[in-house]
Amino acid sequence: MNKIDSQLLQNLCKVKAPSGSEIYLKEFLLNYINENQTNWAVRPKIIYGDDFQDCLILVFGKPTTAIFAHMDSVGYSVGYENELLKIGGPKAEEGTLLIGNDSKGEINGKLHYSIEDDGDEKRIVKTEITFSREIDRGTTLTYQPNFIETETHIQNCYLDDRLGIWTALKVAETLENAAIVFSAWEEVGGGSVGYLAKFLFEKYTIRQALIADITWVTDGVKDGNGVAISIRDSGIPRRAYIDKIIQLANESGVKFQLEVESAGGSDGNALQKAPYPFDWCFIGAPELNVHMPTEKVHKTDIQNMLDLYVYLMKNL
Amino acid sequence: MNKIDSQLLQNLCKVKAPSGSEIYLKEFLLNYINENQTNWAVRPKIIYGDDFQDCLILVFGKPTTAIFAHMDSVGYSVGYENELLKIGGPKAEEGTLLIGNDSKGEINGKLHYSIEDDGDEKRIVKTEITFSREIDRGTTLTYQPNFIETETHIQNCYLDDRLGIWTALKVAETLENAAIVFSAWEEVGGGSVGYLAKFLFEKYTIRQALIADITWVTDGVKDGNGVAISIRDSGIPRRAYIDKIIQLANESGVKFQLEVESAGGSDGNALQKAPYPFDWCFIGAPELNVHMPTEKVHKTDIQNMLDLYVYLMKNL
Amino acid sequence: MNKIDSQLLQNLCKVKAPSGSEIYLKEFLLNYINENQTNWAVRPKIIYGDDFQDCLILVFGKPTTAIFAHMDSVGYSVGYENELLKIGGPKAEEGTLLIGNDSKGEINGKLHYSIEDDGDEKRIVKTEITFSREIDRGTTLTYQPNFIETETHIQNCYLDDRLGIWTALKVAETLENAAIVFSAWEEVGGGSVGYLAKFLFEKYTIRQALIADITWVTDGVKDGNGVAISIRDSGIPRRAYIDKIIQLANESGVKFQLEVESAGGSDGNALQKAPYPFDWCFIGAPELNVHMPTEKVHKTDIQNMLDLYVYLMKNL
Repeated sequence: MNKIDSQLLQNLCKVKAPSGSEIYLKEFLLNYINENQTNWAVRPKIIYGDDFQDCLILVFGKPTTAIFAHMDSVGYSVGYENELLKIGGPKAEEGTLLIGNDSKGEINGKLHYSIEDDGDEKRIVKTEITFSREIDRGTTLTYQPNFIETETHIQNCYLDDRLGIWTALKVAETLENAAIVFSAWEEVGGGSVGYLAKFLFEKYTIRQALIADITWVTDGVKDGNGVAISIRDSGIPRRAYIDKIIQLANESGVKFQLEVESAGGSDGNALQKAPYPFDWCFIGAPELNVHMPTEKVHKTDIQNMLDLYVYLMKNL
Repeated sequence: MNKIDSQLLQNLCKVKAPSGSEIYLKEFLLNYINENQTNWAVRPKIIYGDDFQDCLILVFGKPTTAIFAHMDSVGYSVGYENELLKIGGPKAEEGTLLIGNDSKGEINGKLHYSIEDDGDEKRIVKTEITFSREIDRGTTLTYQPNFIETETHIQNCYLDDRLGIWTALKVAETLENAAIVFSAWEEVGGGSVGYLAKFLFEKYTIRQALIADITWVTDGVKDGNGVAISIRDSGIPRRAYIDKIIQLANESGVKFQLEVESAGGSDGNALQKAPYPFDWCFIGAPELNVHMPTEKVHKTDIQNMLDLYVYLMKNL
Repeated sequence: MNKIDSQLLQNLCKVKAPSGSEIYLKEFLLNYINENQTNWAVRPKIIYGDDFQDCLILVFGKPTTAIFAHMDSVGYSVGYENELLKIGGPKAEEGTLLIGNDSKGEINGKLHYSIEDDGDEKRIVKTEITFSREIDRGTTLTYQPNFIETETHIQNCYLDDRLGIWTALKVAETLENAAIVFSAWEEVGGGSVGYLAKFLFEKYTIRQALIADITWVTDGVKDGNGVAISIRDSGIPRRAYIDKIIQLANESGVKFQLEVESAGGSDGNALQKAPYPFDWCFIGAPELNVHMPTEKVHKTDIQNMLDLYVYLMKNL
């Protein structure tokens, strides 16, 4: 990853856009695309507006496959008296820095768990933010970014899925016939994929999707062993489509590993339930410290992810 | 609330229409609308029939926003040998009166829990109705209404959501450009909102919804403190839409309180998952004794709910 | 059941088609239909292809009602180092024979549970297949069929829902105006019913569905007491539709029993959530040993199921 690419990823991770507040990432993306598309192989149609809420679609040439990358991150909503409610499944430790804004100004406080310990079991009874004043109800908070790049890894909050967004933007430079979808609400079970799929199917007869998202390092999917192609997670895609992708991945020469899990989900699950005949396959780099402020991905896995997307979007 | 309004609410609460049996409330509404619409500012199109199952839509002028109010209530299905199965989440005490009809006549019995007590824990192992004969399988039972009006409160079963329906009917008197949707199956996770949203979006390009439903009194939402505008519950709506509504609510001068919860849901969740780009916001009075026969709402909160809907439907 | 019918059912149960791999059952059905439709009362339109993934629709004359029968079965995916992950909810005992194929050849091994016993409780910590070599990741495994026909019963794996498919194929011989839908992913919560419902509604204005699937023998639904008509399970259909079906069932003279359950689901649940106004009713024979290799159904219940479908498709 060169300096410009690294900076782009860093900037993406800085945008405060938990589920429901994707509008800020949409604005970032519109700016980026407007500034950079002149250097792309093909200039896409940029589709957004009232019929798409805060989502954004890019259409290059005559697309048959769409890349889905979700804009939203996990986070917290401020409830009553600075209590915190989860947005999606954040996994933060005691003392984690949380930031945001409300009508009275900037917020920068520490997460605090009240623990009940009855001898047998410790149980979180309340999650709060320690801050000097009461925060407006409904204010959303996100992690304080802390970008760390080493010889081998990149670490930051929200690599899930700003790295998927980053990959989509890098692949965009090479696309001739394709669609890219920047979706919303993935971390909370969906809410945009249905109408996005409707549009892609009805307007362009697109039936093939790749889910550009970040997965977990597990017993079977190792850090640094290549981009993961998921055969299944909680969702079970159509096997004939997965087999076609695995065959192309073999032909591509790109380093990849096959994932088979029973838990976890993605925009693929929402596509599965949408009333359109979409095939989908999750393809993404694995990360350590999922949904923590220290999400961490191997740089070669990132490169493999990008390379595989470039190959698949040409050959699928 | 004057006597006529109070009588209307009382009559709405009497209709036996648990999820799946909304047809009886639909019939009540058709009668009411036919008798009263001549006094309304605008006579609406009344839309129903085979394409809408037991649902009903009113369209006034050129609508851009739809009010959703669900017709169904919680209740019970009779299983084998007078065992009871829940419809939605009823919360009734031992001895609660349940009423219904089957092929052999009227039913009026008492709810009975069989409790297993192993010392550590009490557990309901069976819920039954005590009645003189075996009831037809699949018969639906509901609470015996008991309307109590005091200086400050109204109490009855099924204020959730007959009070939402009542609000919609009262707002209807003033509407010029709007839609009202009377939906089904809300208490069991949905089943009508998808096709209702489809119709509203495809026929009228409606993308804005207000969910006229009843919420819970909690630590942050107090009885008598105004209508609740929900920033989130288990569903997380688009923040830009919520912010617009809060701003209008501030301008309206109506007393309201902001709700932020992690649990609970409404027709909003079904709208979120439907493949149409609907914004939604839950706005409703808070109640005590949720899903019990003694649901109880403060009269000023009811008035605030009605006033806020009147204001929003003019200005949103 | 005569020999030819028994052989057809046996052959259907042999097809390895767990959720996601329905393509193999689709191919079987296409062959069967092409060979047999000349003997049917009406030759149907056979609808399949890219817009229907691995699903298949038959349309006879001018249809108003569709039969849904799901092609997929429960099964297992091979994970890492021969660990097994469930596809749907298989219920197999230690030592159950599992079969499949991967790039290295045929697989025929035994299911093995690793049990953790801490005195209080036994808990399955791992499910594996005992086999001589490592199996390709993502390989799907199914039960080894073992068809047993006695005077009274038929026993085999995957009667759920190959018996529903069988019923649909037998009813097909008599249909004049109807649709039959062979659906996918039922055992894992759906994924095809949405677009199938869309097609049926938009192209043929079909709003009525019967779910031809297999249910459970319970306290209220007995083996040999007739086909079950489900008034509700986890899903609650529209009561007016169920009542119409029960009335027709009474007129038919076919032996049936009414089911009322709080758990379990079917393609009916997916129809309920699809954005089309479909009424649905589950009608199917009850079985013993649900999702085990020894699913077992009474032959008279099978005959009742077939007879009731023939009657309903003429009179509904």
